[in-house]
Amino acid sequence: MDFLNKPRYVPMNRRRRIYEGKAKILYEGPEPGTLIQHFKDDATAFNAKKHEVIDGKGVLNNRISEFVFTNLNAIGVPTHFIRRLNMREQLIREVEIIPLEIVVRNVAAGSLSKRLGLEEGMQLPRSIIEFYYKNDELDDPMVSEEHITAFGWATPQEIDDIMALAIRVNDFLSGLFLGAGIRLVDFKMECGRMWEGEMMRIVVADEISPDSCRLWDIKTNDKMDKDRFRRDMGGLVEAYQEVARRLGILIENERPHGSGPVLVK
Amino acid sequence: MDFLNKPRYVPMNRRRRIYEGKAKILYEGPEPGTLIQHFKDDATAFNAKKHEVIDGKGVLNNRISEFVFTNLNAIGVPTHFIRRLNMREQLIREVEIIPLEIVVRNVAAGSLSKRLGLEEGMQLPRSIIEFYYKNDELDDPMVSEEHITAFGWATPQEIDDIMALAIRVNDFLSGLFLGAGIRLVDFKMECGRMWEGEMMRIVVADEISPDSCRLWDIKTNDKMDKDRFRRDMGGLVEAYQEVARRLGILIENERPHGSGPVLVK
Repeated sequence: MDFLNKPRYVPMNRRRRIYEGKAKILYEGPEPGTLIQHFKDDATAFNAKKHEVIDGKGVLNNRISEFVFTNLNAIGVPTHFIRRLNMREQLIREVEIIPLEIVVRNVAAGSLSKRLGLEEGMQLPRSIIEFYYKNDELDDPMVSEEHITAFGWATPQEIDDIMALAIRVNDFLSGLFLGAGIRLVDFKMECGRMWEGEMMRIVVADEISPDSCRLWDIKTNDKMDKDRFRRDMGGLVEAYQEVARRLGILIENERPHGSGPVLVK
Repeated sequence: MDFLNKPRYVPMNRRRRIYEGKAKILYEGPEPGTLIQHFKDDATAFNAKKHEVIDGKGVLNNRISEFVFTNLNAIGVPTHFIRRLNMREQLIREVEIIPLEIVVRNVAAGSLSKRLGLEEGMQLPRSIIEFYYKNDELDDPMVSEEHITAFGWATPQEIDDIMALAIRVNDFLSGLFLGAGIRLVDFKMECGRMWEGEMMRIVVADEISPDSCRLWDIKTNDKMDKDRFRRDMGGLVEAYQEVARRLGILIENERPHGSGPVLVK
């Protein structure tokens, strides 16, 4: 089985598609244990009942998620991210995705406001971590630790690790966005099991971008995230570009939008 | 303030109504720190969108709940129950109700089946404890420990106490009903804070009856609980009477139903 440890070089046009989601495609990576994560321009909401292609979104999310994950790695929060490959693609480690969406909320908004009758924009008494079972057919129902452990989606120890990671990511992102004049209302992350020999550890996976965060301008409360799409407000790419610009990722003289490639530093 | 410690005798027709719910009324009790819990014949479901008066239901629930709470007290599970007073009323200790419905599930049914796509009747891998925030306006949304502690509905220590009580109650009820040829599919309970001087402890409150349990005949799977009302199956009082009869509470020669009083041992 020696071939398993040898790098395999697969031409771009012949590589194997492992998984296609609503906004991303995963391809087989150049080496065993790696994958290529490709960001599409598709925007979906309400479990894909609403769908649109938004020119340039994938490029921006690839770039913003690269920035976030690189910095998480740097502060010692383990992630699946290795490096960005090109405009739309990044090299990641293959992990076993835990079928949960982990949502961390700092300010009441969206489904939490609706379910618990809280005014949107209300500062929560403390950050709240929620779990949703990733299942499109069931509309990603909210679940508790009881359901997660009873059905074996994660062990109690894994839940503890996930919650510890979620708190660290929330601390880092809150600071990062605050420094850019942006309020981190909430965000969604996913985790995976990564094996290193006999050792397994939980790492942050998927993406962290304005598709998966609620980001409000700290002065105007303007939405700079996917709620612009969910609520038909328009200006989505411009908002994502503004996030990237404030994070110091985009160079200033870029075209605000268009069909062509977007320059990155 | 010496008068606070003296028993107060209030004639039945002048006693003060403290609270009226969908199926019960609470009156001021004969002594400070006590209440009278009155069982009405009203049946409601789907957050009172469905409502009916079912002759004799209150009497049966009073009697069945007395039986369950008396035996819980006897095995050392603390409850608010003191004693039954008459056909429809019981004397209870006044507690501060924690605004949670605690649901313990052994078999998939109802909202769990629907939310997680599980076949009704499927044995769960282990018992699952769920929390719902008691709020009619919000339709009692499911919440997790994170919401409960963030909004101060209960402390982490109180949640631990509640879960320990829920497991004991589930163990006892599972055995009790099994011995009567009945499968305990799930049940709902409520808890309250009871003060004894400086000491506070969490006790089981409210009621435990076929209104708050799913009970299936072990051989036929016939429903012997409020689902008969929710699903318009009829025969509700007869089913509750059969539960009481199997628990050895009703004497055999009683009238099966009717507008008059139901005899109890």
